[in-house]
Amino acid sequence: MPSRPEADDPRLGDVSEGRILQAILTRTAPAAHTLVGPGDDAAVIATPSGSVVATTDTLVHGPDFRLAWSSGYDLGWKAAAVNLADVAAMGARPTALLVALAVPRDLRLSFVERLADGFREACAALAPGCAVVGGDLTVSDVLTIAVTALGDLEGRAPVTRDGARPGDVVAVAGELGNAAHGLAVLFGRFRDGDAPVPVDVAKLAAGESAALAAQLRPSPPIGLGAVAATAGATAMMDISDGLALDARRMAAASGVTIALDRAALGTDPERAIAGGEDHALLATFPEGVLPPGFRVIGRVIPSADEDLLCDGLPVDISGWDPYRDWDSVSG
Amino acid sequence: MPSRPEADDPRLGDVSEGRILQAILTRTAPAAHTLVGPGDDAAVIATPSGSVVATTDTLVHGPDFRLAWSSGYDLGWKAAAVNLADVAAMGARPTALLVALAVPRDLRLSFVERLADGFREACAALAPGCAVVGGDLTVSDVLTIAVTALGDLEGRAPVTRDGARPGDVVAVAGELGNAAHGLAVLFGRFRDGDAPVPVDVAKLAAGESAALAAQLRPSPPIGLGAVAATAGATAMMDISDGLALDARRMAAASGVTIALDRAALGTDPERAIAGGEDHALLATFPEGVLPPGFRVIGRVIPSADEDLLCDGLPVDISGWDPYRDWDSVSG
Repeated sequence: MPSRPEADDPRLGDVSEGRILQAILTRTAPAAHTLVGPGDDAAVIATPSGSVVATTDTLVHGPDFRLAWSSGYDLGWKAAAVNLADVAAMGARPTALLVALAVPRDLRLSFVERLADGFREACAALAPGCAVVGGDLTVSDVLTIAVTALGDLEGRAPVTRDGARPGDVVAVAGELGNAAHGLAVLFGRFRDGDAPVPVDVAKLAAGESAALAAQLRPSPPIGLGAVAATAGATAMMDISDGLALDARRMAAASGVTIALDRAALGTDPERAIAGGEDHALLATFPEGVLPPGFRVIGRVIPSADEDLLCDGLPVDISGWDPYRDWDSVSG
Repeated sequence: MPSRPEADDPRLGDVSEGRILQAILTRTAPAAHTLVGPGDDAAVIATPSGSVVATTDTLVHGPDFRLAWSSGYDLGWKAAAVNLADVAAMGARPTALLVALAVPRDLRLSFVERLADGFREACAALAPGCAVVGGDLTVSDVLTIAVTALGDLEGRAPVTRDGARPGDVVAVAGELGNAAHGLAVLFGRFRDGDAPVPVDVAKLAAGESAALAAQLRPSPPIGLGAVAATAGATAMMDISDGLALDARRMAAASGVTIALDRAALGTDPERAIAGGEDHALLATFPEGVLPPGFRVIGRVIPSADEDLLCDGLPVDISGWDPYRDWDSVSG
């Protein structure tokens, strides 16, 4: 980020709420479906299909991110992307975001400006027509970004995670394991003792820049959620906690077993199975159906002793929570 | 709250996410409009009128509440009520809440259970048919409750804050100043030095119990939002930051002056004008229109030098932020 003179970049505790809101609102474009936008008690968003899809997900400083690694722009982008992915995973098109920010008083105004830029540009890139339509601003010692995303099903039925049937193909759209690779680079190479230190791009090997981008500014294939629903997906969810854990959840909800084909999981199948935070779309389709952007990674079979198999064997990976044992530092 | 054996009331850091979610979900009733509820990537809520009203508001430990004064039940109730009031203030009927909780690891499970009880009972009492349809659970050193409320306009136009016209009457539904009275009791009588101490109900004078309830478990007249819209309210908002500040906002948005009648403001007009957090509904109606539950407190006049007058004189009160200079303690 370019640095600014301190006088031009005050700490949030030294400026009015109105000044902070102005900085945000001048940076967030209107959403296509907005009937009433920011400035009143609530936003009003058109829902032509007669229903609204709604989800919420929060990023908390410490458990979810480090300021040495993530810029305000990165955090705005990621907070948007992870919520957009949940809307897409229902087969819906995202229409609007509400952003509840709890900010420390000593945070700089420029950080909030870049956060708003990240929200705007993530929406423009991943879900055109969607934008921030409302929010809340409060003070906290812990920077917390709670986002609610709304979406429209455009007349389609929602695609839940409990509809997978034996004989369906199991497919994914988006990356598997790249975000985990990025996090491994951060944890492995950009720390001084336990403290995170900023990334030196000159030290990145081939492929590591893309892995870091997948971790810090993920670009899940949001538009493919509606495509999958239209094509007849029987079940769908986004992969936030890793393929192993999330495919198990889908299998359990559907009362089936999911049998993965290891050869279809790319050059690093272990990481593809275990690594979370890519927010790829995991979907099942009837035999013979596979919309563009999806690739087959397995089959749905009748319920067996295990919810999840890979090449016919049980998968010994429980999921993904890399920060769980590492929250004493909050840099 | 009844105390439980520690083995039966574990700290959140010692139990699984699934266990915590189960405790919450068994306590939250289904919402009338829910098509897909908790357990998938997102909720789906019916919006028969073709639009959805959406708002978000956050309670943060420290700036917004003290655990010595507020139980889990109180916080669930209040977090629901303040968001429901924003939906009502648009003239809409609340349909659903999404709750993003960020919880310290040493918080007890029973606290979260009572929080869920508070959400459920506030919805049942204030907005029947509305309930928690989704949420998010994450870890933070600072207890943070970020709520998004959705609502349906049932075919009505939204009532924004910019529609007040000269000649309209200014009216309110709900309490003015009681929540501030309650907070004054807490700050004035239930502290040991700077540290908050639990309320001893035996020490409360007549009227103080009601004032504390207004502060800790506010009951704004949610149903009257739709009533006001149907009756033809020209502008409406909820009073979160005090009548002085919020009436000024309405006057400025509408390009008019609001002239209050001091005699209509009850037995403590100063507190009624300055005190925030009652979440009463402030609305303007054409002359001759006044729906049940509203009382006239003034008139809309053409824009004058001042946005707000009381008995013809300027109002020298800027608003409401009682915790602003008192956040060193977080009990």
